[in-house]
Amino acid sequence: MFKLLSKIDSKMPFATAKAHCDVPCGIYDPITAQIAALTVVRMVDLIVDHNPDGNSMNAEFRNKASRLIANKEEHTEKVKHEIRVIWGDFIKEPHLEEYPQLTSIVHKIMALGSEAKQHVDREKAVELVEAVNEFAEIFWKIKGVETKRAKAPYAPNLELVYPAL
Amino acid sequence: MFKLLSKIDSKMPFATAKAHCDVPCGIYDPITAQIAALTVVRMVDLIVDHNPDGNSMNAEFRNKASRLIANKEEHTEKVKHEIRVIWGDFIKEPHLEEYPQLTSIVHKIMALGSEAKQHVDREKAVELVEAVNEFAEIFWKIKGVETKRAKAPYAPNLELVYPAL
Amino acid sequence: MFKLLSKIDSKMPFATAKAHCDVPCGIYDPITAQIAALTVVRMVDLIVDHNPDGNSMNAEFRNKASRLIANKEEHTEKVKHEIRVIWGDFIKEPHLEEYPQLTSIVHKIMALGSEAKQHVDREKAVELVEAVNEFAEIFWKIKGVETKRAKAPYAPNLELVYPAL
Amino acid sequence: MFKLLSKIDSKMPFATAKAHCDVPCGIYDPITAQIAALTVVRMVDLIVDHNPDGNSMNAEFRNKASRLIANKEEHTEKVKHEIRVIWGDFIKEPHLEEYPQLTSIVHKIMALGSEAKQHVDREKAVELVEAVNEFAEIFWKIKGVETKRAKAPYAPNLELVYPAL
Amino acid sequence: MFKLLSKIDSKMPFATAKAHCDVPCGIYDPITAQIAALTVVRMVDLIVDHNPDGNSMNAEFRNKASRLIANKEEHTEKVKHEIRVIWGDFIKEPHLEEYPQLTSIVHKIMALGSEAKQHVDREKAVELVEAVNEFAEIFWKIKGVETKRAKAPYAPNLELVYPAL
Amino acid sequence: MFKLLSKIDSKMPFATAKAHCDVPCGIYDPITAQIAALTVVRMVDLIVDHNPDGNSMNAEFRNKASRLIANKEEHTEKVKHEIRVIWGDFIKEPHLEEYPQLTSIVHKIMALGSEAKQHVDREKAVELVEAVNEFAEIFWKIKGVETKRAKAPYAPNLELVYPAL
Repeated sequence: MFKLLSKIDSKMPFATAKAHCDVPCGIYDPITAQIAALTVVRMVDLIVDHNPDGNSMNAEFRNKASRLIANKEEHTEKVKHEIRVIWGDFIKEPHLEEYPQLTSIVHKIMALGSEAKQHVDREKAVELVEAVNEFAEIFWKIKGVETKRAKAPYAPNLELVYPAL
Repeated sequence: MFKLLSKIDSKMPFATAKAHCDVPCGIYDPITAQIAALTVVRMVDLIVDHNPDGNSMNAEFRNKASRLIANKEEHTEKVKHEIRVIWGDFIKEPHLEEYPQLTSIVHKIMALGSEAKQHVDREKAVELVEAVNEFAEIFWKIKGVETKRAKAPYAPNLELVYPAL
Repeated sequence: MFKLLSKIDSKMPFATAKAHCDVPCGIYDPITAQIAALTVVRMVDLIVDHNPDGNSMNAEFRNKASRLIANKEEHTEKVKHEIRVIWGDFIKEPHLEEYPQLTSIVHKIMALGSEAKQHVDREKAVELVEAVNEFAEIFWKIKGVETKRAKAPYAPNLELVYPAL
Repeated sequence: MFKLLSKIDSKMPFATAKAHCDVPCGIYDPITAQIAALTVVRMVDLIVDHNPDGNSMNAEFRNKASRLIANKEEHTEKVKHEIRVIWGDFIKEPHLEEYPQLTSIVHKIMALGSEAKQHVDREKAVELVEAVNEFAEIFWKIKGVETKRAKAPYAPNLELVYPAL
Repeated sequence: MFKLLSKIDSKMPFATAKAHCDVPCGIYDPITAQIAALTVVRMVDLIVDHNPDGNSMNAEFRNKASRLIANKEEHTEKVKHEIRVIWGDFIKEPHLEEYPQLTSIVHKIMALGSEAKQHVDREKAVELVEAVNEFAEIFWKIKGVETKRAKAPYAPNLELVYPAL
Repeated sequence: MFKLLSKIDSKMPFATAKAHCDVPCGIYDPITAQIAALTVVRMVDLIVDHNPDGNSMNAEFRNKASRLIANKEEHTEKVKHEIRVIWGDFIKEPHLEEYPQLTSIVHKIMALGSEAKQHVDREKAVELVEAVNEFAEIFWKIKGVETKRAKAPYAPNLELVYPAL
């Protein structure tokens, strides 16, 4: 995908892209969605760890289990909301033409988000992080900002795409 | 009840009712509350179906159980909020005089809503749908719009009151 | 567009579509988004009507102006949120293949929603209603439910797409 | 009204009333609604005070005006929500029979709340405080707790009904 | 602590304190946070009571357990939010100098609030009520209003600090 | 301040700090608060720019003015909420002893946040960004992660503190 992006990149002067967006768009930053997606993975890890044998299913256990699930729900919703806002407000028709894969990435994020809500499935949650990373890479391309990948400085320490500032 | 309503109806010219409401009231439509009440029944059905033997009470099970209960809560609250808004903003003193049963229907919706939150009881949830239907019938009477009953086009496919457009 | 839809329709047995969705999807209904879009038009009308000469710009005036704008914002957000939920949770890959126009309708709803928030522009708000109607038509096609068009029974009385129950 | 209440009171042993409510009802307290209603009056006062001549209608002015109106809206909604919760969850059929004026007080609170949102009208806002006070008096009667009236210890220093602890 | 407070009190004329706050601060009242903290204790009691043997862990049981935990979460968040608002908006630099213990009380409320969310621990929840009471005592001192302690008129009937009106 | 921090740093092995926090704290990241603070500055800039002469104070103008103010309010609240969560949940007693300035930074953020809400004052909004940056620097110190300063890749392009990944 990187190759494709840099090709497209060379055809689309960033100044133009910025000119389309800066006045109406204010501040968009996919990092909020990326952190939320990472939190979904974290919650899955904590839910799976928090699975004692039947004897210890007391009030304390249920309290924690319930909170972890609610937290997973909340952060998955945040991923979906943040991506929808950037996609709907910042991404314009010309961007969709230059990055034809963008819409299917967005739809994949919505579908993976729903699976992340419905299940306790680490693999799917990691796919969600990666889909949001792909979205972030294109976003920063459009803004004309280089990106790098680095491990997030907190568990589950997955790689996130960051602008190379 | 229908008979009673049509008697009242003949005494209360709708033009008058509309004149009281149109400017301040904007757009009120009980369908949002009706769909939410139907969703409560749906959640009860899913919660009851999702009741495996003790061995399968794992994280995946708890995740789904927790989400269904939260969803039931959210939609019951929506029923109560939507009905309160229409009752408080759209319904005026003269309507309460013409439809003296209206207030007890509204209080019944609040009470059934609380039971729907507190329990997993299909019968009560269906009563909630029916009470919201009764409210909708009076609402459309006041607006001077004919209604019909039809099965909703999604499970649990209960009858809803619709304006006959 | 109607023609195109009925062609696609004949190629896609609805039983299959329903089988994909019924268990996970619960109750989806675009009417909530449609009513919200209609409310956006209503708010534009009220904002424009509420535009007195400079002398009457007192506290009472500002109170109403402020509330109408906030109400427009809230209902536009509701349109966007409801459509995102149906698109992300109910619409699956095969539907996107059968209705290739669906994604651009969804993106158009997001973009029109942003314009409806940013401006006081009746024409754009009416386009938003129409885009949500187009979405509703495809939605009901997928569910195998006939639709009709009828004027909504409240101002601004624009045509909405309803299931023909 | 006090006389009427104490008559009813003598007919309705409080132990019974408490028996109906204690387990399901948890903690209800109308003081939250009363403080919110007082805040509505306060906001009206600040909005009216904040009404400079045309020359000073700059960004700073609009910022404050906008925030005061939003704050008024939020606290009026809180009044309505809190009263609806107590009325719908705590108040049962027998209370409605013993205090037949209760429902019309509740409907009056909803209607006054809507006026408080729609206008900048101190008189109506003060009526709202008083209607919520009346509700609080009956509430504490039902709970078997004596009440007193005292000026609230913050502007606008109107009288509130407090339990006499 | 009372002694310390009254000493400080004598050094800080209330008129001054009020002059700092009245115009910007509107209506602040710690009672909302105190009631919310009491509700946290109540929820702990109900959760602990609602702990049947394994055989009765059916849907009805899970529904109630889930709601009690969510309610505990919501009210703990309310405690933290309300205290943050008063601390951040009403409490100014001079108050912090006069009441040097104030900040550590606020931080303790935040920490106890987190424990109240994370566990089902009555002792910690009661400590939370007491910490909020301490905050309320200082708050009313700053406002120049006498306080008293009285048992709240609803279970769990713990002592709250009230202004002596 | 940097000097002070590195001195404290050398006395407090990060492994210890992490041991206190990692299991309960999940994922905390001040970047969300930093972006929100930056957005506050951006909104101030847009509000100030959007200040036409009296003749153009039409509905379109008021719509934009109202939305910018609401947006400023929302993002300032977000700053305050995010900082409160990290301060209350992640920061423990030992951190407060090691970084005695932390609490006054947090209180300053609350106070600056209130001013940012109450006024349209770029200088104060920039101070808010800087206070949140100071908080972020200490946060990352506690986590044992190096930081750097870089201009944010969107207007108003102020310097933010980022972890050096």
